[in-house]
Amino acid sequence: MESTTAVSKVLRNAYGASPEMRAKVRRTIDELGYRPLAAARGLRGQTYTIGVMLPDIRNPFFPEILDGITGRLADTDYQVFLGPGGCNDEKAEARVTEAMIDRGMDGIVLIAPVSSRARLEHIATAVPTVVVGRHGHSSVYDTVTDDDVAGAAVLVGHLTGLGHRRIAHIEHHETDPTRIEEMPNAQRADGYRRAMRAHGLAEEIDVVSTSYTQQGGYEGARQLLARPNRPTAVFAGADIVAMGVLEAFAEAGVSVPDDISVAGYDNTTFASFGPISLTSVDQSGHEIGANAARLLVERIADRLKSPVQIKLSPTLVPRRTTARPPA
Amino acid sequence: MESTTAVSKVLRNAYGASPEMRAKVRRTIDELGYRPLAAARGLRGQTYTIGVMLPDIRNPFFPEILDGITGRLADTDYQVFLGPGGCNDEKAEARVTEAMIDRGMDGIVLIAPVSSRARLEHIATAVPTVVVGRHGHSSVYDTVTDDDVAGAAVLVGHLTGLGHRRIAHIEHHETDPTRIEEMPNAQRADGYRRAMRAHGLAEEIDVVSTSYTQQGGYEGARQLLARPNRPTAVFAGADIVAMGVLEAFAEAGVSVPDDISVAGYDNTTFASFGPISLTSVDQSGHEIGANAARLLVERIADRLKSPVQIKLSPTLVPRRTTARPPA
Repeated sequence: MESTTAVSKVLRNAYGASPEMRAKVRRTIDELGYRPLAAARGLRGQTYTIGVMLPDIRNPFFPEILDGITGRLADTDYQVFLGPGGCNDEKAEARVTEAMIDRGMDGIVLIAPVSSRARLEHIATAVPTVVVGRHGHSSVYDTVTDDDVAGAAVLVGHLTGLGHRRIAHIEHHETDPTRIEEMPNAQRADGYRRAMRAHGLAEEIDVVSTSYTQQGGYEGARQLLARPNRPTAVFAGADIVAMGVLEAFAEAGVSVPDDISVAGYDNTTFASFGPISLTSVDQSGHEIGANAARLLVERIADRLKSPVQIKLSPTLVPRRTTARPPA
Repeated sequence: MESTTAVSKVLRNAYGASPEMRAKVRRTIDELGYRPLAAARGLRGQTYTIGVMLPDIRNPFFPEILDGITGRLADTDYQVFLGPGGCNDEKAEARVTEAMIDRGMDGIVLIAPVSSRARLEHIATAVPTVVVGRHGHSSVYDTVTDDDVAGAAVLVGHLTGLGHRRIAHIEHHETDPTRIEEMPNAQRADGYRRAMRAHGLAEEIDVVSTSYTQQGGYEGARQLLARPNRPTAVFAGADIVAMGVLEAFAEAGVSVPDDISVAGYDNTTFASFGPISLTSVDQSGHEIGANAARLLVERIADRLKSPVQIKLSPTLVPRRTTARPPA
């Protein structure tokens, strides 16, 4: 028993352990190259490690969020590690979040997770958790999101302001009924419908359901081109979707924006490239990330009484792919 | 002494420790919520954690490498965590690599590090290390690179094959003399010069020195446009550089490829987008990542006798930005 008590005391930095005993155990641990994550590093058993789960490292919107997180933590002792969570894959998300918990990370930021609500709450019960880019209230985790309904409204307003009425939307097909109202893609489609109605264009509502991928945009555009009455503007739910739309339109000899206007969402880096110059909606990813980091640090320090929901306002970035409809 | 010996034995899973003693120490550690990364998880004191340092999460080439790494490790117990290393920032690289060592990671993959050779060898002495995207031999770490000299030659050959002679190159300005021959950017510029000479075009060699950024491409293109005898083709050292070139050319009313051909390097996702359709060089990032992961696992298991250097052959991906020079 003596030995385990000694370990326990040293690991806890307990007052009862003599300085000599403490030094001895530490030296043994050091000699073994055994790097204690917890007690040896912080009084509260912290590892000063924060895990950020990225669902898809290719999504060019995530670096902005990440910059916001690391910028906010730059002056702290926290180190950020990213765990690749796979694309729309609940099993991969479970694996990486379990690995984070297993390695004693102090807190976790989940970016646009696709796991069930129950699963997210399970994670948040084990470790302080902030969920980014997913709507819905929880009693155990905090959330930071873009106001996707407002973003869709800003974009529809831009298009109607240019004179468009036949505005179509390409959405990401969502099948899970429990997730549907929490996902940004569903909120954008909902925001589009509401905005169309608000502009008196209920009869023009035209939603094509594919996926938030380049291929999804390509397929969606092909469907829209086959309409007897083609839209004069297409609101793609994400910039990557707009890339597929532009490809399909170029193939079909449709000129953008002369024949049809195209807009995306996310204001990714490539949206600003000269040959693309895509009108988009900026989610202020940096602010989202900074807020997530701030909430997480407060949650780890136990300073938050109840769960917090932060919703940020997106802004329109008009570029060359949107213009007045053809006369 | 007794207690430290007991800890030591248990942590090492030494034969001398009785099962009861082992259980006691482990229980104490568990009670403390002390998650031992090392001995408790593996017989060899492993944490089954691999750190991958990314210098710039925005570089669209890195996801390919990462996919190669995670794909190779998918059937193992290893979990990959990414540490953002900052952009061309030796201090940020030191911070993240120290954090990885400090947390007992079993091995580290450094992607395109900018730190000094001495610093890289210091890291490799502390933990098994594979360096990706940086040339040069070391006695302590393994390397996996693209053959940048061959890549530049393939691209110059493509352009001369189309009939170009005045082919300019935009390089990333390298100042550190110890790093200069190890960096891919320097190798690409070197490969360009060699290839031009091999095609009897030594007098046409024209290198503009800016940076591997969109802005660097823009500035480089402006310099080339001011030449009394403009090039008919521009080989940008990276796709992101080509984006700046296309922007500057569009502004100046220069048509691509009718007036001037443009090519990049890396075959990033956006190079394939319809409105861009950029001729580029594919580094087979997936293969690079898979090889890095394989070497690292073998190095961790102590199966590699001496350092290994793997060099992979890049391939040309011709698209719409390159064509015959104007008559």
